[in-house]
Amino acid sequence: MSEQFAAVEIISAKRDHCELSDPQIDWVIDAYTRGVVADEQMSALLMAILLNGMNSREISRWTDAMINSGERMSWSTLSRPTVDKHSTGGVGDKITLPLAPLVAACGGAVPQLSGRGLGHTGGTLDKLESIPGWRASLTNQEMLKVLHEVGAVICAAGDGLAPADKKLYALRDVTATVEAIPLIASSIMSKKIAEGTSALVLDVKTGVGAFMSDPLKARELATIMVGLGTRAGVKTTALITAMDVPLGLTAGNALEVRESVEVLSGGGPADVVELTLILAQEMLSLAKIKPLMDPADALKNGAAMDHWRRMIQAQGGDPDAALPIAKEQQIVRAHSTGELIGMDAMKVGIAAWRLGAGRSRQGEKVQAGAGIEIHAKPGELVTIGQPLYTLHTDEADRFQGAEEILQGSAQISSSGEKITRLPLIIERIEG
Amino acid sequence: MSEQFAAVEIISAKRDHCELSDPQIDWVIDAYTRGVVADEQMSALLMAILLNGMNSREISRWTDAMINSGERMSWSTLSRPTVDKHSTGGVGDKITLPLAPLVAACGGAVPQLSGRGLGHTGGTLDKLESIPGWRASLTNQEMLKVLHEVGAVICAAGDGLAPADKKLYALRDVTATVEAIPLIASSIMSKKIAEGTSALVLDVKTGVGAFMSDPLKARELATIMVGLGTRAGVKTTALITAMDVPLGLTAGNALEVRESVEVLSGGGPADVVELTLILAQEMLSLAKIKPLMDPADALKNGAAMDHWRRMIQAQGGDPDAALPIAKEQQIVRAHSTGELIGMDAMKVGIAAWRLGAGRSRQGEKVQAGAGIEIHAKPGELVTIGQPLYTLHTDEADRFQGAEEILQGSAQISSSGEKITRLPLIIERIEG
Repeated sequence: MSEQFAAVEIISAKRDHCELSDPQIDWVIDAYTRGVVADEQMSALLMAILLNGMNSREISRWTDAMINSGERMSWSTLSRPTVDKHSTGGVGDKITLPLAPLVAACGGAVPQLSGRGLGHTGGTLDKLESIPGWRASLTNQEMLKVLHEVGAVICAAGDGLAPADKKLYALRDVTATVEAIPLIASSIMSKKIAEGTSALVLDVKTGVGAFMSDPLKARELATIMVGLGTRAGVKTTALITAMDVPLGLTAGNALEVRESVEVLSGGGPADVVELTLILAQEMLSLAKIKPLMDPADALKNGAAMDHWRRMIQAQGGDPDAALPIAKEQQIVRAHSTGELIGMDAMKVGIAAWRLGAGRSRQGEKVQAGAGIEIHAKPGELVTIGQPLYTLHTDEADRFQGAEEILQGSAQISSSGEKITRLPLIIERIEG
Repeated sequence: MSEQFAAVEIISAKRDHCELSDPQIDWVIDAYTRGVVADEQMSALLMAILLNGMNSREISRWTDAMINSGERMSWSTLSRPTVDKHSTGGVGDKITLPLAPLVAACGGAVPQLSGRGLGHTGGTLDKLESIPGWRASLTNQEMLKVLHEVGAVICAAGDGLAPADKKLYALRDVTATVEAIPLIASSIMSKKIAEGTSALVLDVKTGVGAFMSDPLKARELATIMVGLGTRAGVKTTALITAMDVPLGLTAGNALEVRESVEVLSGGGPADVVELTLILAQEMLSLAKIKPLMDPADALKNGAAMDHWRRMIQAQGGDPDAALPIAKEQQIVRAHSTGELIGMDAMKVGIAAWRLGAGRSRQGEKVQAGAGIEIHAKPGELVTIGQPLYTLHTDEADRFQGAEEILQGSAQISSSGEKITRLPLIIERIEG
């Protein structure tokens, strides 16, 4: 049987609602990585998977095959337990930035391989790259050194890690096959398992600003991912958290770094601080780390900030350098007086993207200074004409598109309507 | 909006069970033909269409867009009405070969653009190419000349005819998206409408040896195609015909030419003669041609043979040349005595393919002499050890694969079981 012929057979099987066998999954991922299965064949298979699904055995094997397409990292020489966090992405979700040094300060080792943003949510690497001098690429040896010396490292996944996933991710992006739970789960978990962390806390976002706006879908995704991690020997817990309203008061790269530094200085918005502390506790307890100090204290006493500064410096960044500021600013004001009862995270995310903070295609540049400052959050009283948002961009012609999408993003009520907000932590799923 | 972005939007729409708009269909076909929509994007869209369907407006627009991707031929300078036939493909289906010259002899003009075979069914051009000297490619001017002088021409579609369909067909072949009724219907009808025939009889095969083994699916395909033709101003009728048993006594290129010549000489197997005459009558009546003679007479009196000879000669072929004979022959014998009550057309078709008569991929060579001679058809009594098939191939190592698939292809009953055969003509669908 020619290899090409097998690809058509495998696509046909999934098209016809059949289960793929373990050898079929192993072969198709390997052959795709080698270029024997063509992009147009894989995209047809991905669409069939999106529409016809995969069962848990298939998802698990698919994940294993992606892990096996590359190297698997190991941190066995470290004296501290490794523990990582992954968020499915939200608007203003800068939690990784304060969280990784905070957990390191409390005694964990955080080997965080992060990604870049696409669409309306930001990427951790894009945010950190707004720090002058900071570089995302480390060799495995450099990564181990930073982990050893600082206890936390945030960097780009090397080419050797789950190369099948890298190829698949780029393909899914242009073929409208991103939104398949089996593909999302296997993509995230293959990288996290290959990364070699021994414990993993998943922050699965739901609400209008999340990829999984439906809480039932978010729970399905979380359950599958927890199962994949646990089966692979990674202690895994998922929190399903709110993404109906932006997290904190900023969305944008340098703007979010600034807010993260505020949190590390013991200040910052309440929701960012709360989620950071909850996730830190989850990570420490999952990895069975007896904390060197209470995480809340570590934010106040400078220990987390000290780890942040060393982590940034270890990757060439200057933690004291001024962060980039966008060339143009514009204020969006409240259109009426009353209580702010809602703020659409998706609209704010798209506005930040349109201002230049995000990208539409892989490889596009983002503006370090672009984004949105939020001046009032749901629950606060606002007065007509009061600033709601400050928009930041290097290109003034971007303001119009951002303002358009922000129309109606903030709901102001003068009739005593109740705020209907999701609780910050919606559900907890254990392995 | 960038063009790339629109492709993802269109794929997403069909993925999410939405109707594609006319401008979306026009754009995606045009952009795919120009190479702006990539193969991997189109294959994801094709899989979404296969699984989620298209309604009749979408199919009609998709067909129009494929026609508009190239030229549209015209035969207005001919004095005779044009009428063509298309078969969806079956095992031993050589009907086009005697039919085209027969209809020409009776007064029609048959501008038949044919294709090559793929998989278990043969292609008309592959069959004719077994005639020494015959060439499939003609310019439009040459095609008009043969039509004018002979009244029938069978040749390959030029590059200018529905180029979108050519690209899509090659893509569907490697991405398991051949089996979508909207795509099959639009592919066939875009070529036939662009070909410029004024009337068209469709021979839609059903039964185990057909692409549409399910008669309900065959009817659905026939109904859609008749609708597409009628809407485009082409008088269109479909016959749904049996493909449970091979047509005639041969499957293979030169073997089928030989059988066609027998039919044109007034002999040949009864089922081939019957279907040829039924289709000739349909074509003549649909095109409102007052026949110059009765088609049955034209087979007997040499008129059809005369047109065959001139048609072959006009394309460089020598109608008197010996046809190629395969280097190796092997006989498959009856395993018991009794009545032959069934012969699986699919198994016979795959066996002929394995012997070298067919191809697995576009562009592969086929053997002119390879194929199968059938020595008994359902309804006949056979004796153990009697030859059932003679296998022909140039490569003796191909016998084993053919014999394997032929095991059980012929059902022999000694207990008086009834033959359950489909009637030759199952249904007729008018525009």
